[in-house]
Amino acid sequence: MANFEFKNLYLVNPCNLDDEAYARSMHAYEILDNAKIFKNFNKAIADLDFLIATSAIESKNDKRHLRNAVSIENFTENIFKVKGKIGLVFGREDYGLLNEEISQCDMLLKIPTSQNYLSLNLSHATTIILFYLYLNSKTEEKEKRIIEKTEKDKLFGFFSDLLDEINYPEHKKEKTKIMFKRMIGRAIPSKWEYHTFMGVLSKSLEKIKNK
Amino acid sequence: MANFEFKNLYLVNPCNLDDEAYARSMHAYEILDNAKIFKNFNKAIADLDFLIATSAIESKNDKRHLRNAVSIENFTENIFKVKGKIGLVFGREDYGLLNEEISQCDMLLKIPTSQNYLSLNLSHATTIILFYLYLNSKTEEKEKRIIEKTEKDKLFGFFSDLLDEINYPEHKKEKTKIMFKRMIGRAIPSKWEYHTFMGVLSKSLEKIKNK
Repeated sequence: MANFEFKNLYLVNPCNLDDEAYARSMHAYEILDNAKIFKNFNKAIADLDFLIATSAIESKNDKRHLRNAVSIENFTENIFKVKGKIGLVFGREDYGLLNEEISQCDMLLKIPTSQNYLSLNLSHATTIILFYLYLNSKTEEKEKRIIEKTEKDKLFGFFSDLLDEINYPEHKKEKTKIMFKRMIGRAIPSKWEYHTFMGVLSKSLEKIKNK
Repeated sequence: MANFEFKNLYLVNPCNLDDEAYARSMHAYEILDNAKIFKNFNKAIADLDFLIATSAIESKNDKRHLRNAVSIENFTENIFKVKGKIGLVFGREDYGLLNEEISQCDMLLKIPTSQNYLSLNLSHATTIILFYLYLNSKTEEKEKRIIEKTEKDKLFGFFSDLLDEINYPEHKKEKTKIMFKRMIGRAIPSKWEYHTFMGVLSKSLEKIKNK
């Protein structure tokens, strides 16, 4: 939860939050300190506006509407449209959520897993969903690397000069230059990488010319 | 691993695989049974063609090329183009991967986490990446790209020789070689691109030596 900026933990009829629980929480003990504890499920969901039940197991039977789930991609596409207090409901480590609990939720979210090993550890199921929500909440701020045209053009210029100096076959030049451009396009170098790589190419050129 | 259809576990200098380890593996004990155990990192990676180091921590400093990471979206978009034996490298629970281990990898993958709580539990980091790969392997059945270790090593060899021939500053050599490795790791060249690029570098070398 702390890794992905979630704060509000609701626990229904939990075990004791003893020393072991605190030791395992590492630096996120505040989440345990502030956890709200409820005697039963109905009390826990009383102040929540939208509930998402989670499960790795989905019924194949279409009529079992109760366990008719949305995919995780569909979920993350749509959940940010919901305004209000959203509750993610995770079941017990051993037998998950009961049908009567799932039936009170607005949505059932299925985490895709191998048909040979469907059942996920509770902590892993939680990690996956919180990570997914965290990742998708940040989509606007994705890593952006500025590539300046002048740097790119300089690097391609050096490469082109190098082909000339090594008497690269004329009929292959164009193709090879495009290949280089494509590779750089996929690598998306940083400013520092551009300059370092240009350094190597320009020194190679110098060496060939002056020797 | 079993949840997401991964089978091959390599362990470097692990603790004892005792009863507790088997109890925790639940129905996935076969993965433990078949785990390959190595005394050191170099032996573990000997038969792998493409290595991905994982970390929750990335250097802000552009010059810390070593920890210059790709995003998880970029990673899942590109990794399925690689054919060959791919190794996902996870570090120790307490202090992750050492720089000398990361430097041997083709790519560094960063798992985005909160700035307030960067460090992920090893089991959660693994879950996220394996889940992500599992999810994306189901949608992608694209043309694969074969990267053979020998080709990669040859290309890096030419680059290294080139640095020697142009009297590249000794103290910068290692850094620049890793930068080149990272760029190639992100570019994931095709066989043809490898050979073409190698051709340019080897001709440059020849020209410098024979002139």
